[in-house]
Amino acid sequence: MTTQHIPPEWAFEFHGHRCPFMPIGYRMGKLALAHLGVEREKDHGLFVFPELGEGHPQTCMMDGMQVATGATYGKVLMAKTFYGKLAATFYHPKKGAVRFALKAEFIDAMGKFEFFAYRKRGVEPSEIPSAVTEEVIQWMFDQPDEFMFKIEPKPDFKFTPVKGSFNKTKCSVCGEYVFDRYVRTKDGQPMCIPCSGYDR
Amino acid sequence: MTTQHIPPEWAFEFHGHRCPFMPIGYRMGKLALAHLGVEREKDHGLFVFPELGEGHPQTCMMDGMQVATGATYGKVLMAKTFYGKLAATFYHPKKGAVRFALKAEFIDAMGKFEFFAYRKRGVEPSEIPSAVTEEVIQWMFDQPDEFMFKIEPKPDFKFTPVKGSFNKTKCSVCGEYVFDRYVRTKDGQPMCIPCSGYDR
Repeated sequence: MTTQHIPPEWAFEFHGHRCPFMPIGYRMGKLALAHLGVEREKDHGLFVFPELGEGHPQTCMMDGMQVATGATYGKVLMAKTFYGKLAATFYHPKKGAVRFALKAEFIDAMGKFEFFAYRKRGVEPSEIPSAVTEEVIQWMFDQPDEFMFKIEPKPDFKFTPVKGSFNKTKCSVCGEYVFDRYVRTKDGQPMCIPCSGYDR
Repeated sequence: MTTQHIPPEWAFEFHGHRCPFMPIGYRMGKLALAHLGVEREKDHGLFVFPELGEGHPQTCMMDGMQVATGATYGKVLMAKTFYGKLAATFYHPKKGAVRFALKAEFIDAMGKFEFFAYRKRGVEPSEIPSAVTEEVIQWMFDQPDEFMFKIEPKPDFKFTPVKGSFNKTKCSVCGEYVFDRYVRTKDGQPMCIPCSGYDR
């Protein structure tokens, strides 16, 4: 099956440039919602754990996942595992978890497109000729789901969000508010982490 | 000055619900771009370090910052410091850094709105009556910048992104690609972190 799941125009505006990976993350996110049988998350009930890290390309996938699922970084629903892999686990407390990974064969086939030659020369996505970018995006849209994604239900997946609190205290040095979990004590006074000089 | 910086409709669609904090982060982000003299980031040249953490409210600010600045989580341009504070530092390598914090007086004044009584009872934002939500959003739009934000240039701020690499290796166990920085070795074979059983 080829379920294109073309992102809305505002998804590209949010992301800032056109590239194949934001739409790949979007497609992965839409397929994961369908797999779990959930709608896009309005509030705080769906969690996404991308296996990406830093210092490598193709992290743009995560912006597509945010757009598709509503499990945004701002709502503290997305957190990287720092495994350096092109995969993510999608978890809903009432529906369970599923892991989607990009298949190596798909990554190899996509890597032959000219877009990546530009990227490896250090050309930023917004500076790459439009025809070069659109070529690889359109190719991706046309690939079958089975060629792109390895899908694994994760019945044993466990995750418990930290317990939240609205309590906050003013730092005795800078006067700024600090939420309870992060208030530190120094010389008997409540302080924020930077004013305390403590690491964490 | 009261520079409302009302977010586009798609920003609310991205975020998933209407609340005052996404627009506060949007406004903070727009003001920070103006302060630094930069445009919304298309590619990878602007970094945002929100001081928020987990297990506390009002993190929605970060979605507004992503929308306003283009420094998205997916592009690895946003990373929390986990200080539990309603503040963020915006950094452009050629323009320097500035920190914006919400003033305690503003937070106190806003906290009196009925919206927060609902939130403290555990009602999710999408379930709060629209009039209650719009009341606090409109009040926020009408507040002067100086009442909301403490602004500090940070001339000594330093940040060096990790050096990136496109190199990747197939894990000898699962066959999935792993980017160089995250490849581990076990029994003399390259492995991904989960297959290796190592913590990191």
